[in-house]
Amino acid sequence: MGNAALRKKIYIIIHGTDTPAGRRFDVVLLWMILLSTLTVCLESVPSYRQLFNVYFRALEMVFTAAFTLEYLLRIYSNPRPLKYMFSFFGIIDFLSVIPTYLAIFVPSLRYIMAIRILRLLRVFRILKLTSYVENAQIIRSALVASMQKITVFILTVCALVLVIGTVIYVVEGEENGFTSIPQSIYWAIVTITTVGYGDITPKTATGQVISSLVMLIGYAIIAVPTGIVTVELSKVKAAGTVPAGPPLTCNNCDREVDKTDNYCSNCGNPLVRMK
Amino acid sequence: MGNAALRKKIYIIIHGTDTPAGRRFDVVLLWMILLSTLTVCLESVPSYRQLFNVYFRALEMVFTAAFTLEYLLRIYSNPRPLKYMFSFFGIIDFLSVIPTYLAIFVPSLRYIMAIRILRLLRVFRILKLTSYVENAQIIRSALVASMQKITVFILTVCALVLVIGTVIYVVEGEENGFTSIPQSIYWAIVTITTVGYGDITPKTATGQVISSLVMLIGYAIIAVPTGIVTVELSKVKAAGTVPAGPPLTCNNCDREVDKTDNYCSNCGNPLVRMK
Amino acid sequence: MGNAALRKKIYIIIHGTDTPAGRRFDVVLLWMILLSTLTVCLESVPSYRQLFNVYFRALEMVFTAAFTLEYLLRIYSNPRPLKYMFSFFGIIDFLSVIPTYLAIFVPSLRYIMAIRILRLLRVFRILKLTSYVENAQIIRSALVASMQKITVFILTVCALVLVIGTVIYVVEGEENGFTSIPQSIYWAIVTITTVGYGDITPKTATGQVISSLVMLIGYAIIAVPTGIVTVELSKVKAAGTVPAGPPLTCNNCDREVDKTDNYCSNCGNPLVRMK
Amino acid sequence: MGNAALRKKIYIIIHGTDTPAGRRFDVVLLWMILLSTLTVCLESVPSYRQLFNVYFRALEMVFTAAFTLEYLLRIYSNPRPLKYMFSFFGIIDFLSVIPTYLAIFVPSLRYIMAIRILRLLRVFRILKLTSYVENAQIIRSALVASMQKITVFILTVCALVLVIGTVIYVVEGEENGFTSIPQSIYWAIVTITTVGYGDITPKTATGQVISSLVMLIGYAIIAVPTGIVTVELSKVKAAGTVPAGPPLTCNNCDREVDKTDNYCSNCGNPLVRMK
Repeated sequence: MGNAALRKKIYIIIHGTDTPAGRRFDVVLLWMILLSTLTVCLESVPSYRQLFNVYFRALEMVFTAAFTLEYLLRIYSNPRPLKYMFSFFGIIDFLSVIPTYLAIFVPSLRYIMAIRILRLLRVFRILKLTSYVENAQIIRSALVASMQKITVFILTVCALVLVIGTVIYVVEGEENGFTSIPQSIYWAIVTITTVGYGDITPKTATGQVISSLVMLIGYAIIAVPTGIVTVELSKVKAAGTVPAGPPLTCNNCDREVDKTDNYCSNCGNPLVRMK
Repeated sequence: MGNAALRKKIYIIIHGTDTPAGRRFDVVLLWMILLSTLTVCLESVPSYRQLFNVYFRALEMVFTAAFTLEYLLRIYSNPRPLKYMFSFFGIIDFLSVIPTYLAIFVPSLRYIMAIRILRLLRVFRILKLTSYVENAQIIRSALVASMQKITVFILTVCALVLVIGTVIYVVEGEENGFTSIPQSIYWAIVTITTVGYGDITPKTATGQVISSLVMLIGYAIIAVPTGIVTVELSKVKAAGTVPAGPPLTCNNCDREVDKTDNYCSNCGNPLVRMK
Repeated sequence: MGNAALRKKIYIIIHGTDTPAGRRFDVVLLWMILLSTLTVCLESVPSYRQLFNVYFRALEMVFTAAFTLEYLLRIYSNPRPLKYMFSFFGIIDFLSVIPTYLAIFVPSLRYIMAIRILRLLRVFRILKLTSYVENAQIIRSALVASMQKITVFILTVCALVLVIGTVIYVVEGEENGFTSIPQSIYWAIVTITTVGYGDITPKTATGQVISSLVMLIGYAIIAVPTGIVTVELSKVKAAGTVPAGPPLTCNNCDREVDKTDNYCSNCGNPLVRMK
Repeated sequence: MGNAALRKKIYIIIHGTDTPAGRRFDVVLLWMILLSTLTVCLESVPSYRQLFNVYFRALEMVFTAAFTLEYLLRIYSNPRPLKYMFSFFGIIDFLSVIPTYLAIFVPSLRYIMAIRILRLLRVFRILKLTSYVENAQIIRSALVASMQKITVFILTVCALVLVIGTVIYVVEGEENGFTSIPQSIYWAIVTITTVGYGDITPKTATGQVISSLVMLIGYAIIAVPTGIVTVELSKVKAAGTVPAGPPLTCNNCDREVDKTDNYCSNCGNPLVRMK
């Protein structure tokens, strides 16, 4: 088998879902991503780290080896390796493996290991090939259509919390936990979004009256983004399902491509899905 | 009265609502279920348990005896007892009575007694015969129709809280209560859903800025599921009330049945309601 | 002026808004209700009670005297005094004045004084004569139309919190603050409604996983009542504003009356508004 | 260049966006407002204040000098300086600079410095010239249309929290943190809006049952304002985008003006945008 043929074949297995090998590859990759994400999570638990440290390291080596191999194959098989390497998913792929290698030389960089959680985002590359996309597309188009109005809403809320935060800072003062204006703005956001941690709470009567107003405002204005998105969603629905399916995007560089294209116009990789 | 006739008569009383006896049976059963659930709740309160232990035990014995009798009659009268025993409600019925018997032999299994709370679910079998169903059906069909989109939403939220949890774990660290990534993900969920317990809160300025962003995200994206369900609900409404009433289901095994059926095609029990 | 004429005149002043005297009466009464409510609130603050006790008592005597006079005039002028006395607002009127008299004989019944807060509800009798009603009517009719579905929703949430509460009680146990099933149900409600006090929080890993699920459920299902009410509200709107204004109700006994009626068919009082 | 011509030119630069100078002026002003707001925030952090006090003072002097110059130019160039000075933005402009001068004479008035945060509101004067307005207008018109219904809702919630607050005050009492009726009303608002600080929480069983009811009420009635605003927003949308763009307002005094006007009918300033 020639070099080019091999590259083509690897490419089809990695990017395509039409061949059994391609489908099997996706399923295995999906599980490895989920398992390695779980491993990163559990490894961060102090008691588990002490008990199962050896197993975590072994698992981590297996995952890193597999992901490194995959990364190298992606570069090797890709017609435009550099484009891939600096694409969104290329960088994510790189960040998925590099922390483990760094940890060999600089063992104390524990926090850098947390970068590996970004591996999870690679799940969305696989999901791009499924029916998941169509519904995500409907939601996204409704959100995009309401983006401007949501921005107006967020800007207004931001101005609101800034002024409210300053007012409560003046009213309550540092002795009641409102130690600075940024801190008080944090409180205002906690309150207006109805999260309400309770780590900082008004102590004076005036502060409690102001809080009550802020809560009622936050309780009432949640209606605005909800209304906006509902109206946009009902529009998307009214227009039938999305015109002609979701826009097709290159598996490699995420650029939108045309149904009749054989190669991505941006990074030049063959568009396996279209076959 | 012959054996078969007796079984038939019991069956009609237990499953039907057309005879006065059947209706009375349902009302009595409904109250017994609610009362026994209340008993389980109150029994778990330490101070009540000490004071009224004798009464609780007496009540429990009465309820268990009644439910055991009912369970045995259901098996006896059912044309296909095994099917019933392994159906959803059959298992619930079994779990409703068995803990009390276990407790006689192993008196310390206090927590197993909590299983009896599942008795409450038997209420829904009785409700299946009422107008409750039609409205539940409308809501359920709207939820089913929006299931895929809600799944996309939940998946995105899950990916979001995983990444946010890891970021806050790195930023705040173990000394501020963010002791592990799972713990931090728990915090991220508490924050993005605007629950805001306040058991873990950001202490550093960077952490508070990230929290504020998470809260605003959570406050804004609640609009998405709300919009989805509202649009689906308005569709269900537009199409008139549900086509031809709720789908009929067998009282015994929960399988959907046809209006013209006389016996359930799955477990073979006579479909009393249809008469 | 004859007795009957006087009664009629008083009646028109108290219940009508067409005469200047009737309007003035309503405005004065509105302010007295709001002020006396404020007085009850401020009187409950310990520091204020110590400082201004004399003033509070004086104010209270003035308000009680005025409301007593009003109450007696309402009985006197009403064609069916007994009907009025046992109507909703009749009882509210009675409860508004009686605690002050009781306090003279039994001075320690401090909590009974709190009943006076019910005076506030009398505001709604005055509001019944304004444009406030029409909008309240639209909202109420939407709520009534969605009542059945909301009930289904609330029932499901109740069953959910009962089961969740029991599960968390078993998982976390008494040593983590989940001292009984009712207490755990309280926690489940606090969590699923996204209130999140944080007075009881899960400590174990399993408990935190369950909590996270409960929060996500609560965050998602808020969409259901919102969707229901939105759909109903949009229907009410689609049908034009409410058919022929809000249903007219008797000012005295709250019974719905016809536009062409001159006297309430229930309590027989003259329907001043209709003139 | 004559005096009048100079004033006219300054006026066009300050109020217009048609000339390059006018646009540059807006951009520079926008950044200065945001930066000075940030400075006010950071200055309030105790640790920063100690470290960078000199820089904060220097920055503050620069900003105040610039804003003072701008304020004087606005007065100078305005055809009706007094109208401007007592308009909304005129007062905001004045309050943006005066605290710094006051602080020279009375250095301890630290809290008065917080007034400078109002500078942020000047951002909205600049935003009035952008596409931001159209979307804000849609939202605002939906909110105005639903104002009456929202008022009914807020009034009902207020009555509700007053009664609930009093009930919980009686039930829980001062020994459980519910020290007065206003304090208990504050708790009721915290609970019904699902904020849930947790600074005051029910301790008795009865109190927890009442709380649970309040939470469920708050969880359900959020549907009302959301439904109202959604319906109004969908109406605005149905009627096409807003009739003929947002109403034009005078840059100077905020009064609504007609498209064909050349001067504001209220304060007489030339309407640069209309040219």
